[in-house]
Amino acid sequence: MSLVAPVTIHKIAGESLSEAPDLLAVEEPLEIRLGFGPATDRQQRPVSVTMRTPGHDEELAMGFLFTEGIIQQPADIISCRHCVQDSQKEGNVLRVELHPDVAVDWSRLERNTFTSSSCGLCGKATIDAVMAVSPGTITADFSVEPAILHALPERVRQTQLAFAYTGGIHAAALFDADGKLLIVREDIGRHNALDKLIGAAFWQNWLPLSQFGIFLSGRIGVELVQKSWLAGVPVLAAVGAPSSLAVQMAKEARMTLAGFVRDSRFNLYSEPERVNTSQLIFDS
Amino acid sequence: MSLVAPVTIHKIAGESLSEAPDLLAVEEPLEIRLGFGPATDRQQRPVSVTMRTPGHDEELAMGFLFTEGIIQQPADIISCRHCVQDSQKEGNVLRVELHPDVAVDWSRLERNTFTSSSCGLCGKATIDAVMAVSPGTITADFSVEPAILHALPERVRQTQLAFAYTGGIHAAALFDADGKLLIVREDIGRHNALDKLIGAAFWQNWLPLSQFGIFLSGRIGVELVQKSWLAGVPVLAAVGAPSSLAVQMAKEARMTLAGFVRDSRFNLYSEPERVNTSQLIFDS
Repeated sequence: MSLVAPVTIHKIAGESLSEAPDLLAVEEPLEIRLGFGPATDRQQRPVSVTMRTPGHDEELAMGFLFTEGIIQQPADIISCRHCVQDSQKEGNVLRVELHPDVAVDWSRLERNTFTSSSCGLCGKATIDAVMAVSPGTITADFSVEPAILHALPERVRQTQLAFAYTGGIHAAALFDADGKLLIVREDIGRHNALDKLIGAAFWQNWLPLSQFGIFLSGRIGVELVQKSWLAGVPVLAAVGAPSSLAVQMAKEARMTLAGFVRDSRFNLYSEPERVNTSQLIFDS
Repeated sequence: MSLVAPVTIHKIAGESLSEAPDLLAVEEPLEIRLGFGPATDRQQRPVSVTMRTPGHDEELAMGFLFTEGIIQQPADIISCRHCVQDSQKEGNVLRVELHPDVAVDWSRLERNTFTSSSCGLCGKATIDAVMAVSPGTITADFSVEPAILHALPERVRQTQLAFAYTGGIHAAALFDADGKLLIVREDIGRHNALDKLIGAAFWQNWLPLSQFGIFLSGRIGVELVQKSWLAGVPVLAAVGAPSSLAVQMAKEARMTLAGFVRDSRFNLYSEPERVNTSQLIFDS
C-alpha cells in the first residue's frame, strides 16, 4: 500500500494550460473488527469504518481503541492483523484480537462509533455503493471560464464573516456560470458546510444543481464528491487537494473536479472540458 | 446562537508577548431526530450526531437526509424544528417530521450513521462525558521554549513525504522539550493521523505522554483535544485555529493549547505557563 497515487492533470496557471503527472494522497476505507471471548467461543464484531490513508493501520486501530476507552495497555491486545480471506478488500479490514479479560462496553461503543455493512470495503465498493443510489452520471451542459474559478476564493472569503473573525471555519458556496454566489454556508466541519448548502438548495427545490458549481474552502475527500454528485452538480472546485478516491469518484460521476484553486492557478482532475480553456496558451 | 465565541488569549509574535481578545468558531453537537409513522402512532428516532457550528441547522439536517438518500423532495418534510423541552441541550436537537409516505431504510441508515445516547447534548455534556473516562486533569511538569514551537511546522513538514508530493495530507507529531520529533504520522484525516500517533505511543508503552507535546498540521476540533487528553499530553500545538469547544475542553483538562503556530507566531488559549515566556518582551 502506498500513501500516494499517480494521476495526470490539466494545470491552469494564469493564462497558460499544461498537462502534467501529479500525485494524490490515497484515501481508502478501513474497517476495524474486534475479536473477543474465550477460546472456545470466539466472536468478532466490526466497531468502526473510517476513510483513511493506508499505512500504520495497526497503530490507527490501537489509537482508536485506546481513545474510545476499550483498551488500556499493550497487554490487552493479543494480535492485530489484516484479514486476508477477501482479496476484494485489499488490506482494508483489520482484526484486533483482545485479551479475554478485556471487558468491552458494547453499548457505549455503539453510541459513539459507526457500524458498517459487511459488503465490499475498498475504494471501488465505496464508489459502487454511491452509484447504486446516484441519479446516474452527470450530463449537464454547463461550463465556466477560468477567470470565474480564479476569482472564487476571494469572493467567497469576502462573504465569510466568521472566517474573517476566527480564521478557523470552512465554507461551501454555490456559484453560477457568471461566478455569482447564490448560497454560502459556513461550518467548522467541511461536510456540514456542504450539507447546509445542499439542504438550502433542496429546500428551494433547486436540485439537481445542473447549472451550478460548488466551491469548497478545504480539501476534497470522497464524501464531499459523493454529496455533490447526489446534488447533481457538474463542477466541484476547492482550495485544497483532492484525495485519490475523490478523483476516482468524480471520474465515475463525470463531474469536473478542480483542486488547488488559489493564487490564479488550479488543477483539473476530471472532465476538463467544462472549463473553457480555448483562450489559454498550451504550454507543452 | 452565534457562529463565534469570545476568548482572551496570549499572543506570541517572535520575541513579543501580549494579551488580547480573540474570537473562536463555535463548535457544538447537533442531534438529528426523525419523527415518522401515521398520526396515531408517531415515533422518533435519532439518526445522527455531528459536531457543527450552530446556524442553518434545518438546512444541515435536510442536506444530510438528502445525501443519505432518506428524502427526495421538499414535500417529504412536514416540519423541521429544534426540540425545546430540554433547556440543557440549548437548541442542539433538531426534530424532522417526515411525511408518512416516506419509506425510511433503517438498516441502511444504521450502517452509515452514528447513533447517540439520549443524555446531554451540549458543549458541557460533551466535556463531562470525556471527564468521566479521563485520567483527571493534566498536572505534568513539562514546559517548552517559544523557539521550539516556532520551529515545529518546518521540522514536521520536512519529515512529511506524502505532503510534499500531494499537498493534501495531515500530520500529527510527538515532540519533546528539545523539539525532537519522536513519532510523525500522516493521514488524509486529521483524527486518523492523531490516532496513529497515539496508537504508536500506546504500543511503545509510553502513555501517559506527560513529557511530550503533540503538534497537528490542521485546525483543532474538540475531538482532537479529547484524544490528546486521554493520552495525557500536556501541550497541544497546531497550525490552525481551535474551536470554542476545543478551548473549553483544554481548560478543563489543564492542557496547554497553542493555535496558529506558523510564521514565528502562535496564540495560547489555556495554561500558558507551560510555554516559557520569561525571555519575551511584554507588549501591553
